[in-house]
Amino acid sequence: MSRSVGESAGFNVHSVVVTGANQGIGLGLVKQVVGKLNPLEWDFGTSQNPEGAQQLKNLVSRHPNLVIIALEATDPASIKAAAARVEEHLKGSGLNLLINNAAIGNNGTLESETPENMSLVYTTNVTGPLLVSQAFLPLLKKAAQGSNQKGLSCSKAAIVNMSSEGGSIQNVFIWHLGQAIAYRCSKAALNMLTKCQSLGYGGDGILSIAVHPGWVQTDMGSFTVGTLLGEAPLTVDASVRGILNVLPTLSEKDNGAFMSWEGKVLPW
Amino acid sequence: MSRSVGESAGFNVHSVVVTGANQGIGLGLVKQVVGKLNPLEWDFGTSQNPEGAQQLKNLVSRHPNLVIIALEATDPASIKAAAARVEEHLKGSGLNLLINNAAIGNNGTLESETPENMSLVYTTNVTGPLLVSQAFLPLLKKAAQGSNQKGLSCSKAAIVNMSSEGGSIQNVFIWHLGQAIAYRCSKAALNMLTKCQSLGYGGDGILSIAVHPGWVQTDMGSFTVGTLLGEAPLTVDASVRGILNVLPTLSEKDNGAFMSWEGKVLPW
Ligand SMILES: NC(=O)c1ccc[n+]([C@@H]2O[C@H](COP(=O)([O-])OP(=O)(O)OC[C@H]3O[C@@H](n4cnc5c(N)ncnc54)[C@H](OP(=O)(O)O)[C@@H]3O)[C@@H](O)[C@H]2O)c1
Ligand SMILES: NC(=O)c1ccc[n+]([C@@H]2O[C@H](COP(=O)([O-])OP(=O)(O)OC[C@H]3O[C@@H](n4cnc5c(N)ncnc54)[C@H](OP(=O)(O)O)[C@@H]3O)[C@@H](O)[C@H]2O)c1
Repeated sequence: MSRSVGESAGFNVHSVVVTGANQGIGLGLVKQVVGKLNPLEWDFGTSQNPEGAQQLKNLVSRHPNLVIIALEATDPASIKAAAARVEEHLKGSGLNLLINNAAIGNNGTLESETPENMSLVYTTNVTGPLLVSQAFLPLLKKAAQGSNQKGLSCSKAAIVNMSSEGGSIQNVFIWHLGQAIAYRCSKAALNMLTKCQSLGYGGDGILSIAVHPGWVQTDMGSFTVGTLLGEAPLTVDASVRGILNVLPTLSEKDNGAFMSWEGKVLPW
Repeated sequence: MSRSVGESAGFNVHSVVVTGANQGIGLGLVKQVVGKLNPLEWDFGTSQNPEGAQQLKNLVSRHPNLVIIALEATDPASIKAAAARVEEHLKGSGLNLLINNAAIGNNGTLESETPENMSLVYTTNVTGPLLVSQAFLPLLKKAAQGSNQKGLSCSKAAIVNMSSEGGSIQNVFIWHLGQAIAYRCSKAALNMLTKCQSLGYGGDGILSIAVHPGWVQTDMGSFTVGTLLGEAPLTVDASVRGILNVLPTLSEKDNGAFMSWEGKVLPW
């Protein structure tokens, strides 16, 4: 019998926040987390526009422990309000797992990239995760302090930043299909933020990791460039299954790493 | 007899642009370039405020081939105007060497870093070099096309982005002296931009490289953190001498690398 996702020994996650859960990988994460993790108490899926988040709403009707939270990653006040709402639901408990998944892509080239787009992509993909982590830090610390586990782990307290192999300076993944300058720069910067968080928060019992979800069949992952087809090989389901199998295996030695959905360490 | 800086065989640089030349490493670069490179025709030092650039003005009075150009790195119009002014001076010749040196530092922590500062540092340190490179690209291409040298080199046509080991995700240089989140994220992103430029512009005969100048005695390099003293070991002169000895040695195989003032390859 094959083991289900997230059922590795010791993945005792009680509460998860996933940003950008309206569609794509974020929605896939919320679905599998709420459906399969045990003993999950709360699964918080955030959306820029909860009113229109129809797929999340459909899930809520079947899963009362799923809560939709409004969170606009470029708006500091919205981020603080989201953390306050999650805190209310947790009623004194901490937050185990924060997944900074919300992001935007782009396909600007060295010639066409604009200052406005550089700013917007950075604000969403880097400043967003920084501010979201700041806002949820007290809840993550609380989970770490309340845990009797030694060392670091995703079931104790963790920040998972959804990065991209497109942000690997060494590999410059699928350059021939798109320069995506603002996006690549933002993900390299997010990897740096993750490393800084691992150094800054490790002492508080919080693990920080950058995850590459693979090249996935979502709005962001599917595009055409001229006559070349950017055809993502991975389904959302397979990517999310991979990620949820990797997370329970992480420990102190993985703090600050950059890892693929298959658990492979990627070069910066 | 010791060899002077930049006198390695074949460093035939006719024209150089250095941004942020009002003080620190930028000023040091302009000084040594104008004083020692041969057969230099034009040395362009840019400043946010040419009126107040007293040290550059003093140099101009002794070196008629030095020109002070106004350039504000966060203002696209100012960048375009600077490129136009340089083009006028070059009278149909190309530009060999563009040194994107202007940058700002900061010492924000994971807790204190603000969205405003994240944006300002990124706009100055990453979007600035992107836009400056876009604006000077036609002049760099012209230098490459007019050259009969094979392969890539700094005397043919090159973009040198002044990065920092503080932007090495692997090393996280002097973390104990300062988290400098916005700065570190910006320099990791600048390294990615450099790698993208190396892939995008290599075919045009332009070499792109990220340089770490060492930890240098400038306004940016000198700071105190609590009771710890951030005491930079390197003088501006030594750092610049090092850089100007490394640049002439660079060739095709170094395109897109991250290198110290001593010519050591640094990890991303
Ligand atoms: N797909 C891939 O191949 C791939 C590869 C590498 C890395 N990644 C990374 O994986 C993560 C998820 O990507 P995806 O493919 O699932 O993308 P997606 O389908 O485009 O979904 C992105 C999600 O982020 C949300 N979002 C965007 N801007 C936001 C903002 N300002 N505030 C709040 N939420 C915002 C979107 O909200 P709306 O639904 O309301 O627009 C959406 O729910 C991203 O970090 C991406 O960079 C994806
Ligand atoms: N010093 C070090 O230890 C060290 C270490 C690693 C990397 N670096 C890098 O080396 C480069 C030079 O640093 P430095 O130590 O010489 O710093 P610095 O003494 O502070 O000089 C920075 C220069 O950049 C200019 N500048 C700042 N913002 C600008 C803007 N928006 N538009 C145009 N010019 C702007 C400044 O102009 P004003 O004079 O008008 O303010 C100044 O001339 C930077 O890229 C820095 O990140 C330095």
